[in-house]
Amino acid sequence: MRWWGWGEDGHAVPLPPAAEGLLREELGADPSVRRSPVAFEKVSVPEARLPDAARERLASAVGAASVRDDRESRVAHAVGRSYPDLVRIRSGDASSAPDAVVLPASAEQVAAVLAACAEQRVAVVPFGGGTSVVGGVEPVRDGFAAALSLDLSRLSSTVEIDRTSLTARLDAGLLGPAAELRLREEGVTLGHFPQSFEFSTVGGWVATRSAGQASTGYGRIDELVEAVRCVTPAGELGTRAVPASAAGPSLRELVVGSEGVLGVICEATVRVRPAPRAWRYEGWSFATFAEGCDAFRVMEQAGGAADVNRLSDKDETRLTMALGASGSTAEKLGKRFLRMRGHEGGCLAILGFEGDEEGVEDRRRRAAGLLRAGGGVALGHRPGDAWRRGRFAAPYLRDELLDRGILVETLETATSWSNLGALHGAVGEALRSTLSGRGTPALVMCHVSHLYPSGASLYFTFLARQEEDALAQWRAAKIAASDAIVAGGGTITHHHAIGRDHRRWLAAESGELGIELLRAAKERVDPAGIMNPGKLLP
Amino acid sequence: MRWWGWGEDGHAVPLPPAAEGLLREELGADPSVRRSPVAFEKVSVPEARLPDAARERLASAVGAASVRDDRESRVAHAVGRSYPDLVRIRSGDASSAPDAVVLPASAEQVAAVLAACAEQRVAVVPFGGGTSVVGGVEPVRDGFAAALSLDLSRLSSTVEIDRTSLTARLDAGLLGPAAELRLREEGVTLGHFPQSFEFSTVGGWVATRSAGQASTGYGRIDELVEAVRCVTPAGELGTRAVPASAAGPSLRELVVGSEGVLGVICEATVRVRPAPRAWRYEGWSFATFAEGCDAFRVMEQAGGAADVNRLSDKDETRLTMALGASGSTAEKLGKRFLRMRGHEGGCLAILGFEGDEEGVEDRRRRAAGLLRAGGGVALGHRPGDAWRRGRFAAPYLRDELLDRGILVETLETATSWSNLGALHGAVGEALRSTLSGRGTPALVMCHVSHLYPSGASLYFTFLARQEEDALAQWRAAKIAASDAIVAGGGTITHHHAIGRDHRRWLAAESGELGIELLRAAKERVDPAGIMNPGKLLP
Repeated sequence: MRWWGWGEDGHAVPLPPAAEGLLREELGADPSVRRSPVAFEKVSVPEARLPDAARERLASAVGAASVRDDRESRVAHAVGRSYPDLVRIRSGDASSAPDAVVLPASAEQVAAVLAACAEQRVAVVPFGGGTSVVGGVEPVRDGFAAALSLDLSRLSSTVEIDRTSLTARLDAGLLGPAAELRLREEGVTLGHFPQSFEFSTVGGWVATRSAGQASTGYGRIDELVEAVRCVTPAGELGTRAVPASAAGPSLRELVVGSEGVLGVICEATVRVRPAPRAWRYEGWSFATFAEGCDAFRVMEQAGGAADVNRLSDKDETRLTMALGASGSTAEKLGKRFLRMRGHEGGCLAILGFEGDEEGVEDRRRRAAGLLRAGGGVALGHRPGDAWRRGRFAAPYLRDELLDRGILVETLETATSWSNLGALHGAVGEALRSTLSGRGTPALVMCHVSHLYPSGASLYFTFLARQEEDALAQWRAAKIAASDAIVAGGGTITHHHAIGRDHRRWLAAESGELGIELLRAAKERVDPAGIMNPGKLLP
Repeated sequence: MRWWGWGEDGHAVPLPPAAEGLLREELGADPSVRRSPVAFEKVSVPEARLPDAARERLASAVGAASVRDDRESRVAHAVGRSYPDLVRIRSGDASSAPDAVVLPASAEQVAAVLAACAEQRVAVVPFGGGTSVVGGVEPVRDGFAAALSLDLSRLSSTVEIDRTSLTARLDAGLLGPAAELRLREEGVTLGHFPQSFEFSTVGGWVATRSAGQASTGYGRIDELVEAVRCVTPAGELGTRAVPASAAGPSLRELVVGSEGVLGVICEATVRVRPAPRAWRYEGWSFATFAEGCDAFRVMEQAGGAADVNRLSDKDETRLTMALGASGSTAEKLGKRFLRMRGHEGGCLAILGFEGDEEGVEDRRRRAAGLLRAGGGVALGHRPGDAWRRGRFAAPYLRDELLDRGILVETLETATSWSNLGALHGAVGEALRSTLSGRGTPALVMCHVSHLYPSGASLYFTFLARQEEDALAQWRAAKIAASDAIVAGGGTITHHHAIGRDHRRWLAAESGELGIELLRAAKERVDPAGIMNPGKLLP
């Protein structure tokens, strides 16, 4: 991954031609602005401070070649991939760079590293793909002799499939495509496709309670994980791979979502399914967001939802039509068509079905009946195919927008169906009023993308002209939105995790005593407090 | 519930006529033996030792009338409903009776009781329906000034339904029928029907990770609980009712299954569904248990399982045919019919579908196709209806068997599909060899009753002639079976919980560090250690 943004060098997703006009008109952006990242040589990296004794211990744990403190390695592990992370690193601020990057090759080496670090008071930041958008992988040195980034990319060999039980034991450091490719070779799939899929890892998904774009169908990662192996400073925490158990509180559910503060997830046993042999992605239109939400609710509660189910609100639909790949499709379909049905300025929905030919067709037909009864108008497969082609593109586009001095950020929540409309309104309003109050009017868009019988997620994207102090502007918007989320009965995060950025709202969700419980667990397995300090716990 | 057994006085399920002959022939039981419970006046109850100061504090917390130490109340809360519990209480041993039974009427009163008990060093045993079969509600006085049973039956008024989101907030003390009746009045169901349904409570289900007979369809209680409200000595632990969250480890999953050792679950928000309007229960036959398991696996992995799915092994099928209500049905169907298809001495399966007419018919047809392809022979609805009529009868029958000096016990586990046959064999063999080694040959039966994509549960019932020292005999069998379960890769309990009886096997499942984590959590919320001592944690 390039040090200043998303993807590998040379791979970019250019802004659509219509974008500049739209940014100028709606956000007051100056089309001539270019805020490129500084040259790599200009990046300011603090001196590495790993004590010699610690380095020796680490080298004997993993081999000297796997303890790195070259500039490239340290900058690459300085931040995750959130908007404020990118603002800082693009400006040349790598002050959070780890003192070293350590690459263990086994759970045993991880244990040896943790033992060395506990003794030497070195903070350890588990690092999978480094794609956290909540500050989850940023090293925090406060009070420690040094901080190291524990890069798990070498923990990536094991893919052990039980075809009969449809489970797979996976090494934590496997990247999405590598894991999925190995599974497909055996005819199965995990079906887990977060937007970060190309650069995120199995261990990262488990550590952050990730949800993929198709999780309505395949299940969230917390529903897919059957067992974990987690190495903590106090020893190994392993849970038994059984389909269900009543043996007390779920320790697996304590490790899932633990974001590296308890230990290092080295392995997960996950549920897999036969790989799909047929796909059908299609577009639908609803006259209003409320109507679409209601149709989605009825479909989900009837057990008839697709694997991928997305419903954009009016603003997101408008922007998608204007800028996105499906814009041309919408034009082809004709605005007149939608106008005739009262859907002009309506809401675009995408449904995706995967499986075998017959199952896809049966499910598609059933869902179509439910959506039509709920006021939906079918737009055919083109918008679906367009969405599917671009499903991983957003983080690349973000780099282009940052280049043009645009604030672009996403945040997400989930709530009950009965509260969904109110929360959608409150968070949108908080973002709009906060940003326009600062003189940078915002474009705020939202979609529903994960359906549950009792509720759904809301995923917001907002754009504004970047202020000179981009971080202050971001912070104000983030606080306003997050306050609105917790006041409005949502969860502070449906699938991005807590990390550094959501900590101040965790108490609103879990209560002080809940946080005390997590602290007690941490103190027991990490008495020196070296595991990912400054994350998750307020 | 009567003090010495299951159900209310006057309600009994008589042994089928063929039973005595079978018990004599297969177990060497003496048909003239009667081991009736002692008269209530003969029950030995220790003197109540609640210190006056504690009594005053409790009376001011809940009112004097709700602090009871009459003989009836204390005996009724002395034990749960496991086989060893019943052996002891029927013999007149109520040595574990609590010093008092306290009946709070609100979560606030629960908090006041816990504060008083922490101060006075009084152990607190949360008591829902008292149906634990693992010693979960037995008061343990060791090292405490006294022990009280906290009877939650008055926490039973709230049933607050969100029809749009299909959730319901339920008071913990609600008994199964009361909760379900209130939900049905609003057109919804929880669909949770453990065998103890008539006498177990919402809070008890949550505290023990209960699974109902229809949990393959409706979900286990841990899948149905969206939020909990748990009062601990250190304060209240509440989780937010959202459909899904990535806000760190799941505190809900720490409370679910906590068996009263962290605090008192006062309320749960659960997912509900539209109440079924159609039912279809039916019987199937498989030539072998392995063939039936395989057909069930294929059906479940194809997403085509019924709501209730049960497969009896040969011994359970034989006993069911000989004794059960479905015996006559099988006769009607004709043994010749099954013999012709090579199913004589085969395995009976029961499938139950619930929902609307169309859905039931569609699902039934699909499942039938899958089962037939797997070698199943349809037996029609009669065996299904018979099973459904008798679904809550087993605990009543147990009383009859105890009367005749028969050891009758159940235990259960779950494992992966690929390990299911081996575990079935190992546990059965452990029970058979242990009991025949003691000169009391056993009838060991088993069924699969909860299906998951990755595996299934195994539920064993075993019968033998009771030894003079019935508890020693039971203990030997229990240890042999449990050792076989953990050695064979199963969970020590799929839905009965840990309680007192499974503690020694928890480390095999959760590891020493896992147990340390639970201890750390307990110490934080219950520093005085008053909450259900002697349970769950080894």
